[in-house]
Amino acid sequence: MSNPILVEVLRGSLVESRHRGAVAVADADGGAVLAIGDVTTPIFPRSAVKALQALPLIETGAADAFGFGDEELALACASHSGEAGHVAGVTRMLAKAGLDAAALRCGAHWPMAQPALVALARGGEPSALHNNCSGKHAGFLCVACSKGIDHADYWRPQHPVQREVRAVLEDMTGATLSDDRRAIDGCSVPTWAIPLQNLAHAFAKFGTGHGLAPERARAAARLRAACARKPWHVAGTGRFCTEIMQLFGARVFVKTGAEGVYCGALPELGFGIALKCDDGAGRASQAIMAAIIARFLPLGDAERAALAPFVRPTLRNWNGFEVGSVRVLDANLAAPRSP
Amino acid sequence: MSNPILVEVLRGSLVESRHRGAVAVADADGGAVLAIGDVTTPIFPRSAVKALQALPLIETGAADAFGFGDEELALACASHSGEAGHVAGVTRMLAKAGLDAAALRCGAHWPMAQPALVALARGGEPSALHNNCSGKHAGFLCVACSKGIDHADYWRPQHPVQREVRAVLEDMTGATLSDDRRAIDGCSVPTWAIPLQNLAHAFAKFGTGHGLAPERARAAARLRAACARKPWHVAGTGRFCTEIMQLFGARVFVKTGAEGVYCGALPELGFGIALKCDDGAGRASQAIMAAIIARFLPLGDAERAALAPFVRPTLRNWNGFEVGSVRVLDANLAAPRSP
Repeated sequence: MSNPILVEVLRGSLVESRHRGAVAVADADGGAVLAIGDVTTPIFPRSAVKALQALPLIETGAADAFGFGDEELALACASHSGEAGHVAGVTRMLAKAGLDAAALRCGAHWPMAQPALVALARGGEPSALHNNCSGKHAGFLCVACSKGIDHADYWRPQHPVQREVRAVLEDMTGATLSDDRRAIDGCSVPTWAIPLQNLAHAFAKFGTGHGLAPERARAAARLRAACARKPWHVAGTGRFCTEIMQLFGARVFVKTGAEGVYCGALPELGFGIALKCDDGAGRASQAIMAAIIARFLPLGDAERAALAPFVRPTLRNWNGFEVGSVRVLDANLAAPRSP
Repeated sequence: MSNPILVEVLRGSLVESRHRGAVAVADADGGAVLAIGDVTTPIFPRSAVKALQALPLIETGAADAFGFGDEELALACASHSGEAGHVAGVTRMLAKAGLDAAALRCGAHWPMAQPALVALARGGEPSALHNNCSGKHAGFLCVACSKGIDHADYWRPQHPVQREVRAVLEDMTGATLSDDRRAIDGCSVPTWAIPLQNLAHAFAKFGTGHGLAPERARAAARLRAACARKPWHVAGTGRFCTEIMQLFGARVFVKTGAEGVYCGALPELGFGIALKCDDGAGRASQAIMAAIIARFLPLGDAERAALAPFVRPTLRNWNGFEVGSVRVLDANLAAPRSP
């Protein structure tokens, strides 16, 4: 397996580091719009599929039973920065189901975004509420509570909630999720390895509703609308997912996953996107996602200018001096469309 | 350029991410002991050459003029975590030259190690003293002060201190440092691209004194001894450089650099080491360095057992569950020796 170099990191005029990766862009029928590198070997999508994992929250009626609005639904799809507003929102989700932070089984960690970490360090200690996955976990708990199922083991693969999530992932991706391709995610729920081409197809369906049962299509549209209206709740201050969705609203859905994964959808084109950097680098996966948006989405001059710093970020040092940049190799991203 | 995959990151039983890289191990005559991947194209060594950049601090007599002991010399070679003891040591270095933090031009940043960041956030704001390079910068300032040179621009390529550092790097590596291969480091001093094979040769000379003028050989030995005796001052609590040198004392010198670089020396074997991961990943460069030590250094059972967690780190999630591991691909690291 040798995926092409898709991103170079320059220092001065020289290339200092390189990132390889694979990219799949698919339409809602599963047709390949773009395929770079190995898009058929299963990869762990990690948090990039949180929006798919959140579909049961709506489909089971739990979101309506607890009166969830856009913020709660966006948090269920989020890898948030553990800022005060995120913590308050997840606390609210749990309270509506009669629960509190003690029910969460995602583990505690300090916010990964430095400003949020500093803010929390000055006023407290991290709890499971600060875990970037706490909104997803609150969603799982709400599904269990709305069904009257014991929620203690909601994170285990055998629990009805995770079995339902697995069935949704299989339906959306068309991939068989075998136990030998299952691992444990950072927040302890199962993560199943799925090929990029299947993930891209899933997000084309998520972005359009095409090929989905009416109830699932409505649930997907509702989650997309929530994320488009509350992008801060999907990530946080200064984060790529938040800034891109603030910029484009409902025209672009993007969601990061650990180890260099990004998934997304361009609903007006009917395209789904899935990519992974071989080495797990988030800086590269972000730049590639930005380049894909720039390549496919019809943009005005102002939008193109606003997107440019994400496609080619400038690198500055501790004194603010410009020391380099990140560039996407257009030759690879402009590969011929697959048939 | 296609360097081999040297490190795999596993999640469950599957490979989730991969890191490519190049490795040079050389003897003090410059002979190749091991060469994996491209060891001839210049790469930015970044902070991995701080011990070479610190040689003028001793050779000019500045270290003696200011009465520096092991802690100050180790800090001059350090990428430290900005813990209280590091900040106190750098403050002391500056004070001995009649300076304070205002003279530093490295810029301020929050400590990169999370526990140190949390500790500082609870009691203050980061200053230039917390910059991981502040000890190196204090060393540069001390050289200027001991020579009676204006120190205001000590970080600029044209300043006498940086010209002297450049001459030392050329002497140690045998590489010509051309201006078209110069870029700006994170702390604003120049960084010159140098081939890995030259860096490995430089560290073989640094580790043995072989081929160096007597004064330079003595300076190198003194820096090595200082780092071996005060490894905490070279990095900090829980850091790879610190833990490895705590484990092996003067038998192993290792120093990290940004963007996946590691340099080191195994003095009893006369070997110098230089490696870089293509993608800049520190987790991979550490594992490779640990594997090189395990391959070459004669070890007892207890030492081998103590080194094992660095060669193959276990990955745990936020609940402490084992979710995967990092493994070095032995087949590549056991490549035939170059002639």
